[in-house]
Amino acid sequence: MIVLGIDPGTAIMGYGLVESGAFGDPKQGAEQLRMVEYGVLLTPANAPTSERLPMLYDGLVKLLAEYKPAAVAIEELFFNKNVRTALAVGHARGVAILAAAHSHAHIAEYTPLQVKQAVVGYGRATKEQVQSMVKILLNMDHIPRPDDAADALAIAICHIHSRTYENLLENRS
Amino acid sequence: MIVLGIDPGTAIMGYGLVESGAFGDPKQGAEQLRMVEYGVLLTPANAPTSERLPMLYDGLVKLLAEYKPAAVAIEELFFNKNVRTALAVGHARGVAILAAAHSHAHIAEYTPLQVKQAVVGYGRATKEQVQSMVKILLNMDHIPRPDDAADALAIAICHIHSRTYENLLENRS
Repeated sequence: MIVLGIDPGTAIMGYGLVESGAFGDPKQGAEQLRMVEYGVLLTPANAPTSERLPMLYDGLVKLLAEYKPAAVAIEELFFNKNVRTALAVGHARGVAILAAAHSHAHIAEYTPLQVKQAVVGYGRATKEQVQSMVKILLNMDHIPRPDDAADALAIAICHIHSRTYENLLENRS
Repeated sequence: MIVLGIDPGTAIMGYGLVESGAFGDPKQGAEQLRMVEYGVLLTPANAPTSERLPMLYDGLVKLLAEYKPAAVAIEELFFNKNVRTALAVGHARGVAILAAAHSHAHIAEYTPLQVKQAVVGYGRATKEQVQSMVKILLNMDHIPRPDDAADALAIAICHIHSRTYENLLENRS
């Protein structure tokens, strides 16, 4: 299963595609992770919102068509941000959710706390700890840059780990 | 010229289509207004955002295809609202701006203050004063309901009046 993680923003939208499955040595356990692709969608700072949002939508539609993720995981807003930031992030999130819905992917949302708990196992982990875990879990030889892309990969991993945990609970009951 | 005014929201999105041109008695002046259509797009309260946003997008795309407005005027957020409201309105606005951009309409944004000034001529006008002026300017026999639809008509009128004023300035210079 491929999951597309999204760190939404109007100026810069991070994305990260992670596949879960049995790769390499089967003795290492059934569920392993593989980094498929990551990056950011950038929009010009001097362009109006009415041009930037279609650019983001088109970029996401292209990614969704190319990698056909089964699920899209989107970061929820940090609620300590201000109202103007919330509106701008809301614009970007709305467009991202719409693109995901148009591709018929399953859509999930996670708070930064959930992402940290799922990736590092500790809700108050630092940004650096999250990024190091992303690098280790995805067998990458460097920490992904920029931060928005690393965050997006972390959100995708969070979705896979959350699903694995749900599956374990279902199998026990 | 037909203008689509939008009062954005995720649960309820008001819309109002207003045409400007020379209708009826030419002695009344060149620029007159005509109400074309108004209403609200409603989404079910128990549905997730990932279902509500595509519903709103589809509803707007249908309106844009049917009436082919030259411009779409969207209300800006009241910045006294809280962060959670701002995020939800941001989702709805993002989807509305995207639908408008996809229809190649001109997109304009107005603050509530600008709408009041353009419709009533007074930035601190009450909601009732704005609604009464909408009724009078559009020659309607009742105040449009619900409030979201009346607001959307007011935003469309604001765009037409703002353009008229800009044209007057251009003609003088």
